[in-house]
Amino acid sequence: MQKPGKNFRTIWLAPDNPAIVQIIDQRRLPHEFIVADLKSYRDGVRAIADMQVRGAPLIGGTAAWSLYLAALESDGNREHIGKAAEELAASRPTAVNLQWALARMLTAVSEQEGAELVAVFRREAEAICDEDVEISLGIGRHGLTLLEAIARRKNGARVNVLTHCNAGALATINWGTATAPIYLAHEAGIDIHVWVDETRPRNQGSQLTAWELQQSGVPHTLIVDNAGGHLMQHGMVDICITGTDRTTRNGDVANKIGTYLKALAAHDNDVPFYVALPSTTIDWESSDGLQDIPIEQRDPREVTHIWGRNGERLQEIVTVAAGTPVSNYAFDVTPARLVTGLITEAGICEASAAGLAGLFPEHARIAS
Amino acid sequence: MQKPGKNFRTIWLAPDNPAIVQIIDQRRLPHEFIVADLKSYRDGVRAIADMQVRGAPLIGGTAAWSLYLAALESDGNREHIGKAAEELAASRPTAVNLQWALARMLTAVSEQEGAELVAVFRREAEAICDEDVEISLGIGRHGLTLLEAIARRKNGARVNVLTHCNAGALATINWGTATAPIYLAHEAGIDIHVWVDETRPRNQGSQLTAWELQQSGVPHTLIVDNAGGHLMQHGMVDICITGTDRTTRNGDVANKIGTYLKALAAHDNDVPFYVALPSTTIDWESSDGLQDIPIEQRDPREVTHIWGRNGERLQEIVTVAAGTPVSNYAFDVTPARLVTGLITEAGICEASAAGLAGLFPEHARIAS
Repeated sequence: MQKPGKNFRTIWLAPDNPAIVQIIDQRRLPHEFIVADLKSYRDGVRAIADMQVRGAPLIGGTAAWSLYLAALESDGNREHIGKAAEELAASRPTAVNLQWALARMLTAVSEQEGAELVAVFRREAEAICDEDVEISLGIGRHGLTLLEAIARRKNGARVNVLTHCNAGALATINWGTATAPIYLAHEAGIDIHVWVDETRPRNQGSQLTAWELQQSGVPHTLIVDNAGGHLMQHGMVDICITGTDRTTRNGDVANKIGTYLKALAAHDNDVPFYVALPSTTIDWESSDGLQDIPIEQRDPREVTHIWGRNGERLQEIVTVAAGTPVSNYAFDVTPARLVTGLITEAGICEASAAGLAGLFPEHARIAS
Repeated sequence: MQKPGKNFRTIWLAPDNPAIVQIIDQRRLPHEFIVADLKSYRDGVRAIADMQVRGAPLIGGTAAWSLYLAALESDGNREHIGKAAEELAASRPTAVNLQWALARMLTAVSEQEGAELVAVFRREAEAICDEDVEISLGIGRHGLTLLEAIARRKNGARVNVLTHCNAGALATINWGTATAPIYLAHEAGIDIHVWVDETRPRNQGSQLTAWELQQSGVPHTLIVDNAGGHLMQHGMVDICITGTDRTTRNGDVANKIGTYLKALAAHDNDVPFYVALPSTTIDWESSDGLQDIPIEQRDPREVTHIWGRNGERLQEIVTVAAGTPVSNYAFDVTPARLVTGLITEAGICEASAAGLAGLFPEHARIAS
């Protein structure tokens, strides 16, 4: 089994065969740990489209390595690579990191004309993944200071973190975003415990976050999404840390549906509510999350059907009456006023235009 | 199929055999509509303990009818009835209505010594159920005025209600508490639509509320518990109405876990948040819900296991990794400051000591 930490990655080159990229098939978690081989870029397209891999940074990494596979099989044929890039770009159209990783790979090649294509693609894919690990570790180190301060204030008593969805190692290359401070605190010997929101409808909390914390031996407890308010009312949560898909320049945060409800409860009970993010997910063009960020509706089957283990078999069941109408909004927006702070690889700042401009003056200038 | 409304009840005497009480086996909903026969008080004990019936008023009604069955089979033997009352009382120890209904049945008998035992028990069980229907209708009529006012304000445009859990016809004898205003509004021709919270972990929303609204043709949409905040941010909810298990004399409300989170979102978005309750569930002794109301933890299996339909079969699956630790708090407390008003059979009042004292002066006096 894999343990988020020093030797863990969610995507890697097969140790004995550099023509094969390997991933964890996340659709089978937590019931089966299956390593899947990507032998051509088409396997990569499928892995992204079928959600064998998910999480913006990991999707980016998978796209990069898939383009490397395309280069391997292209025999120098640029058309083949162009076709691969197009198919990869369409595999999950709304994933920003996907487009970014593809563009970066293609730029690297055009800047190194004459160099051996495969070698350039391999170096660039490795760099994209290495840099993502560094971003997670940066977020982790800054977030760790918050957890250390709570541990000190509590004289070493257990620090209780609540998190929503999976902004974990499985969503990135390693360490995660919201989980990076947690893993580093655990490694540093802080007595840390995580309340894991189940995260309906796709259950990323109960199926992914709980699993990866279990692998690493981080104490945790699964709760339904309804429970966090009660826990906060009764002093059982010291800090909330979630991830985000997109942050506006004024600090509004779009994240998995239900994040807003937890932020309200944190605010009502004076529990600090932090959001962990790579600075690449800040949308410098937008300054009103509620108005500017479109919220997609997803397949009603995510709500009406659920899969799991029945004895030795994995099965899907339907839990509602036939013909039940369903709405399935995927994200919500938490206004900056409810966010205590943003944890980025560059440091922690207030969730506000001024806070973000302080950490990233060059971006803030361009946008204003 | 049964439709909440004029001819619907959740418990009744078999039309062709007054020695049989019939109920809907709610454990099979929404997949199968099964009417179960209670032929002895022991069937009633099982129906309550195994949750074939649930909801405080319906549990009370089932206890009353079970004591009638005990009288039928007792042949005048008071010991048999005493034993039945004891077993029924222990079938769900925390259900207040259960103890209340049993006490009322036994009091009726002691007040009518010499009268035919079976006839007294039958009359009293009928009265308990009839009165519960009247209470629901009272709540419904008062709550209807709120929905009528919204419909007027919106010039007849659709009125969107959000509800949590099942405070529906299935939890009472008919009409429900939170749903009573909805059914009456629908019958009155108001264009009403209900957002139904799934209500993890037991899914009473997706499995019971959605089903009973479907039976009655009330437009509704199932959502996950995480979604309500987003809907309220975007003006898609006109009013929230939930039930409650227990209300303190100052208007704090204990209800299904997650109610507090919806109340926070309603408050943050100026959406009125009402709680519907029979006045019998007011706890006149308590004036601090967070401090006074103990919140039970239930079986972790409610979170880790889920059942549903797989083709023609009903199956249970496990959705998480083996060994995942779980907390499963059943209720939370919504402070009175977040509750716009209480809808009771006696009228609507502010969620405050003064509000409740205005509607129920005799109780408020005793308690103060």
